[in-house]
Amino acid sequence: MGLSERIDAAVENAIATGQNGPAPQQLSAALRYACTPGGARIRPTILMSVALACGDDQPQVSDAAAAALELIHCASLVHDDLPCFDDADIRRGKPSVHRAFSEPLAVLTGDSLIILAFDILARAGAVAPDRALQLVMTLSRQSGMPHGICAGQGWESESSIDLSAYHRSKTGALFIAATQMGAIAAGQEAEPWYELGARIGEAFQVADDLRDACYDTETLGKPAGQDDLHGRPNAVAELGVAGAIGRLNDILSGAIASIPSCPGEAVLAQMVRKQAERLTPVIDPARVRA
Amino acid sequence: MGLSERIDAAVENAIATGQNGPAPQQLSAALRYACTPGGARIRPTILMSVALACGDDQPQVSDAAAAALELIHCASLVHDDLPCFDDADIRRGKPSVHRAFSEPLAVLTGDSLIILAFDILARAGAVAPDRALQLVMTLSRQSGMPHGICAGQGWESESSIDLSAYHRSKTGALFIAATQMGAIAAGQEAEPWYELGARIGEAFQVADDLRDACYDTETLGKPAGQDDLHGRPNAVAELGVAGAIGRLNDILSGAIASIPSCPGEAVLAQMVRKQAERLTPVIDPARVRA
Repeated sequence: MGLSERIDAAVENAIATGQNGPAPQQLSAALRYACTPGGARIRPTILMSVALACGDDQPQVSDAAAAALELIHCASLVHDDLPCFDDADIRRGKPSVHRAFSEPLAVLTGDSLIILAFDILARAGAVAPDRALQLVMTLSRQSGMPHGICAGQGWESESSIDLSAYHRSKTGALFIAATQMGAIAAGQEAEPWYELGARIGEAFQVADDLRDACYDTETLGKPAGQDDLHGRPNAVAELGVAGAIGRLNDILSGAIASIPSCPGEAVLAQMVRKQAERLTPVIDPARVRA
Repeated sequence: MGLSERIDAAVENAIATGQNGPAPQQLSAALRYACTPGGARIRPTILMSVALACGDDQPQVSDAAAAALELIHCASLVHDDLPCFDDADIRRGKPSVHRAFSEPLAVLTGDSLIILAFDILARAGAVAPDRALQLVMTLSRQSGMPHGICAGQGWESESSIDLSAYHRSKTGALFIAATQMGAIAAGQEAEPWYELGARIGEAFQVADDLRDACYDTETLGKPAGQDDLHGRPNAVAELGVAGAIGRLNDILSGAIASIPSCPGEAVLAQMVRKQAERLTPVIDPARVRA
């Protein structure tokens, strides 16, 4: 089974958890709709790559960690798309959850996915209790307040923004979760893996800014030009397209240099390079709006 | 320190968790606003009472469990009040979170409180890892899908409702969490405590129906007459006011009879009786709308 099939299977298993007896069918369907088919699954791919680089001695725990991280990411997309945030009609090329189902069901889908993520991690405690508890704490720290993705969204309601805290929590947090949870799942210390996650997060932020500025809605699979529209700070406005691509490459070199010594170091460096190619937009100058 | 002060302190400590470095101030304020001052804190009171009846040999773990349960309850109130659900302007006698802050901050407040609840439980794993993992699993089961309070809300979007599953998940789930988490926090088996929680949940549902039908908005601290307004199934419509009070008393007798044998059995029975008196509305016949 390849990495991507393994992640999809872990997410599928997570969604099916605890299914016995009567359950509200629309909300069940919305949970599945929000998580499958997946997008790039970039966060669980990084998590699994780190776990494999560290030996992956408890594959069930890595599977649980990857699924939990992806569920939290999907939950954040569902809530971010709500009318009171981005009011996005499409996501991953299909109607957003509140469009396909309803706004109440979209709120509940996000809530249910967040709760399910922690349930999946606690269940992995049957084979590795200490790792499971560390995974819960790492995921909650990088998801909630005051430093996780909820905090990142929260900054957008402030009149004065701490830009570095904003980017670290809004985009960086789940990449830090990815590298640290991968290490924890394989029985390693989380701390040395912070920098790799933080740098991948920075790279992703710049790449996202580039895609938002350079791609159209159809290619992007979600509304384009949102940063400009909402006046959000972004790398393309600050550096121009060529400057932003240069910064992206610098950050990725730093990311690779930061990889802690581990059995699968070389393979992991290759994975980061591959993600980098995937991240960098193929630019048609005629379509650049910036 | 009395029980109610102990619970308030546990909730305060929970909200202050992880506060270092910059954080978005409005969202921080909204988290505190949503949880303090508390309402009756009935769920954590039941949890603590069960923990004390079972010996409360790890008070830190009971504190964490009580705080986590209350955070989940507060999160559900914040999301239930949103315009797409009850569209409630007031809660606990003050403006609801989306009215006092904004709709985006209300969504994020609920999300952050859910995440924080699991974080608090995992932190308690430092002193009792097995109990912490069981607490996470019990709280997630009773909060999420397919059987927790998210499922309960989800049933309201179905064209055909399984009434028993609906009530068990919408109202019963967090009372089941309360009795089971109290037992787990004190190192006891969860299963024997299911029935007490389920019966208290049924009693609470009937009492809530009575209060909704018999009290005005000012006394209730939230909009009254909502069941009638939304055509929700309720005990007063089914049995009349006197019939519903009779059923409430029957359920509470059953609850007391179901208390498992434990050192603090008698005190616990007294607590249930006290909650019962608190639950039963003082009825002014002139004000009954039903």
